[in-house]
Amino acid sequence: MKLAELSERSGVSTATIKYYLREELLPPGRRISATRAEYGEEHLRRLRLVRAMIQVGRMPVAKAREVIAALDDDSLDHHARLGAAAWALPHGPEPKDDAQNTEDTGAARATADALLESLGWDYSRELGAESPAYGMLIDAIGTMRRLGYPCDVGQLLPYGRLTAQLAVTELDLVERYETPEGQVEAAVALTVLHEPILLSLRRLAQAEESNRRFVEST
Amino acid sequence: MKLAELSERSGVSTATIKYYLREELLPPGRRISATRAEYGEEHLRRLRLVRAMIQVGRMPVAKAREVIAALDDDSLDHHARLGAAAWALPHGPEPKDDAQNTEDTGAARATADALLESLGWDYSRELGAESPAYGMLIDAIGTMRRLGYPCDVGQLLPYGRLTAQLAVTELDLVERYETPEGQVEAAVALTVLHEPILLSLRRLAQAEESNRRFVEST
Repeated sequence: MKLAELSERSGVSTATIKYYLREELLPPGRRISATRAEYGEEHLRRLRLVRAMIQVGRMPVAKAREVIAALDDDSLDHHARLGAAAWALPHGPEPKDDAQNTEDTGAARATADALLESLGWDYSRELGAESPAYGMLIDAIGTMRRLGYPCDVGQLLPYGRLTAQLAVTELDLVERYETPEGQVEAAVALTVLHEPILLSLRRLAQAEESNRRFVEST
Repeated sequence: MKLAELSERSGVSTATIKYYLREELLPPGRRISATRAEYGEEHLRRLRLVRAMIQVGRMPVAKAREVIAALDDDSLDHHARLGAAAWALPHGPEPKDDAQNTEDTGAARATADALLESLGWDYSRELGAESPAYGMLIDAIGTMRRLGYPCDVGQLLPYGRLTAQLAVTELDLVERYETPEGQVEAAVALTVLHEPILLSLRRLAQAEESNRRFVEST
């Protein structure tokens, strides 16, 4: 398809598509003349992913380019590509408390490790102990403690168990895509796009449960 | 306790505490002389909540003040205070797509309503149909569709069921706090503080499940 059709089918303006091409977020089209290029379904799919990352995930272009590079890295196997792309995804704000110190972080890390062990996740085996998600978990535990809120393994386990169930559903969705490239792209897009769905449903579920306890029972 | 002790016990500098007092995020201390005031446990507790909202939740001061006002509103009952405080909490970025239109939003709203009905959440009954979390859910569904990713009730149901289970655990935690004021403050703080925990565990669970499917099986 021509650029105009790619724009129409994706709902993204031709100016924005040209910008993504310049920034190497989209692979170049196939040249058919000095001034024209032809685009395929893979461009449409990639364009959707880029929109998900930049619009919904609020990722800077440089960060999105890093994710794309991981997706396109032929030297990695399927799981490693998924991992590398997830690694490059932003992991929310990283709270750095003014009272933070090494002792706090050590205690938070011990809690995180005990939690992962209880869950049977041998995380160190695969992505290494320093993945951004692992760091984010340690930060979140440390911050809760410093603010004076309890945060032990028992309290965190339900979150771990439920996300494990969720991951099965999420990987099932990813496996519906036929090609390995399609799967990796879907994994990244769904990680980003399902985040606001998860957070909004959590708030709605809390309101529902609060209503059940504090209103219906009176 | 004196200001210096409040600072030491909370790990928040006296300058920051004075700023929060001026901004009415903390109630004034009890005057004991022209230049000195006395602070109590309720100040320490409130200070922790303010730190959670501003540091972890990245909320602007004006937004935090709105949440505090809902907490302190004696005209509301317990559930309504929880609801008002949750309402004032920020709900993440609200994606507004350039291709967004009324027809898309109507279809997304119909999906959201069908989902809530399947879950048995009579949400309209209580906080009204226009709560921020409900709006965020509709936006997220609409964005997925516009980007060309499928998003139907069947795909969303697991998220709803799991957050319903989570809400039971979360409200149990809140009910451990003895006073109604403590409960409402804890509900707000835990909503904010558990968000990064939920999101980081989701990423770790995905990596674990991906490893199980694509590495261990080969």
